[in-house]
Amino acid sequence: MGSELKDVRLSVIDERIKSVKNVIAVSSGKGGVGKSLVASALSLTLARRGYRVGLFDIDFTSPSTHIILDVGESRPIEDRGIVPPKIHGISYMSITYYSEDKPTPLRGVDFSNALIELMAITRWGDLDFLVVDMPPGISDATLDIIRLIKRSKFLIVTTPSKLAFETVKKLIKLLSDLRVEIIGIVENMKIRKSDFIKLNAEELGIRYLGGINFDENLEDALGDVGRFSKTQFFRGIEEIAEELLKALASRA
Amino acid sequence: MGSELKDVRLSVIDERIKSVKNVIAVSSGKGGVGKSLVASALSLTLARRGYRVGLFDIDFTSPSTHIILDVGESRPIEDRGIVPPKIHGISYMSITYYSEDKPTPLRGVDFSNALIELMAITRWGDLDFLVVDMPPGISDATLDIIRLIKRSKFLIVTTPSKLAFETVKKLIKLLSDLRVEIIGIVENMKIRKSDFIKLNAEELGIRYLGGINFDENLEDALGDVGRFSKTQFFRGIEEIAEELLKALASRA
Repeated sequence: MGSELKDVRLSVIDERIKSVKNVIAVSSGKGGVGKSLVASALSLTLARRGYRVGLFDIDFTSPSTHIILDVGESRPIEDRGIVPPKIHGISYMSITYYSEDKPTPLRGVDFSNALIELMAITRWGDLDFLVVDMPPGISDATLDIIRLIKRSKFLIVTTPSKLAFETVKKLIKLLSDLRVEIIGIVENMKIRKSDFIKLNAEELGIRYLGGINFDENLEDALGDVGRFSKTQFFRGIEEIAEELLKALASRA
Repeated sequence: MGSELKDVRLSVIDERIKSVKNVIAVSSGKGGVGKSLVASALSLTLARRGYRVGLFDIDFTSPSTHIILDVGESRPIEDRGIVPPKIHGISYMSITYYSEDKPTPLRGVDFSNALIELMAITRWGDLDFLVVDMPPGISDATLDIIRLIKRSKFLIVTTPSKLAFETVKKLIKLLSDLRVEIIGIVENMKIRKSDFIKLNAEELGIRYLGGINFDENLEDALGDVGRFSKTQFFRGIEEIAEELLKALASRA
């Protein structure tokens, strides 16, 4: 690919998300902390409040939102680019539409190219929120999304575990070095009372948006949005959404 | 780097692990399933049985074994290459010795180079087992390790969740396509009785090595090997190790 073509695509991307008010990159230091569940529930709850919401699953490492939301046979429509289908009121796009559940080990450059391509062709239209389900950790994708969407705000998900928080510290360090905004931290899968994450987040100058208890009924609700919306986890996310809206309002 | 230099390093790697009998790549479809805990406990339990064990943490995405095993101030010694320090009876090497807890977002090629370099300089000596804590999922690192250590046997860790197993299926598909041996699957963090993973593993022709119940006391044992060895989780791994040894014996 010549650098001229690349430049064209980058400016197309700016154009594509011109009418998106907030880009929230839901991220984590490591996998398995519930990042995709948070991104899915946050998108649903914001849409129910009347916001125009897009959800973009670029977690190439383990895409999950299509299972959580049961997107079924929905497909993007081709029309001067591609238009994301509406899933439960959300404009939905996922890398899985183009990988078809095949194992797709993308080397760095291929990934970057696939991401640029998807970003350049997707017509999000007017949105209040574009929620991006990021790959976990500090990877090519993290760097790419920062480069491609300069006004992304990062929402970081962690568990109470020190193993998870060790990786969160690295992510925060990287984002700070790159002067990327971190809108707050969400603590998921709490199994007992502890202020460890809250205190550490505040020490790093990051807003603690709230904690959500471990919900053993969550697994059975995957793929059934009606049931998912009634879980204790989902109610936790509704409160987090409230805090997120406050955080966004307070920085304006 | 010229291709000649590359070839030299690749043949050095073969030489470095010539006296290693079994290379066990502890892998997972996604992060957060307890892969590093399994790799750490497996290494410890094999060492206690009198096997000569090395543990190599190449999980660039979220290295954790140095925290689990509390490696402290230990450092490799330089002597015609580098000699891994002995930690609790294990020859231990980690990418963190060279990244020093700084955020190190390695692009594809850099990662590959760093991995080749580490593999080329580390003097493992005579080992019965080299346990490799892999990065989660299907990434450059998975492909690299398959290329660099052709006789790796993969041990796959999953949770009971369908989100985790979806990603395991992709990993198995990739490994099968590349004709890489899968020695078995370990189910971690079980919170109730279920045969879902066992049945699905067997259907895919993969040996189910056992399930380990969710252990809420595990978090407090991280970094304290004495305490870690007394957890319910660790006892589960002792049984898994038994099954692993049987699996290795039965294929000879």
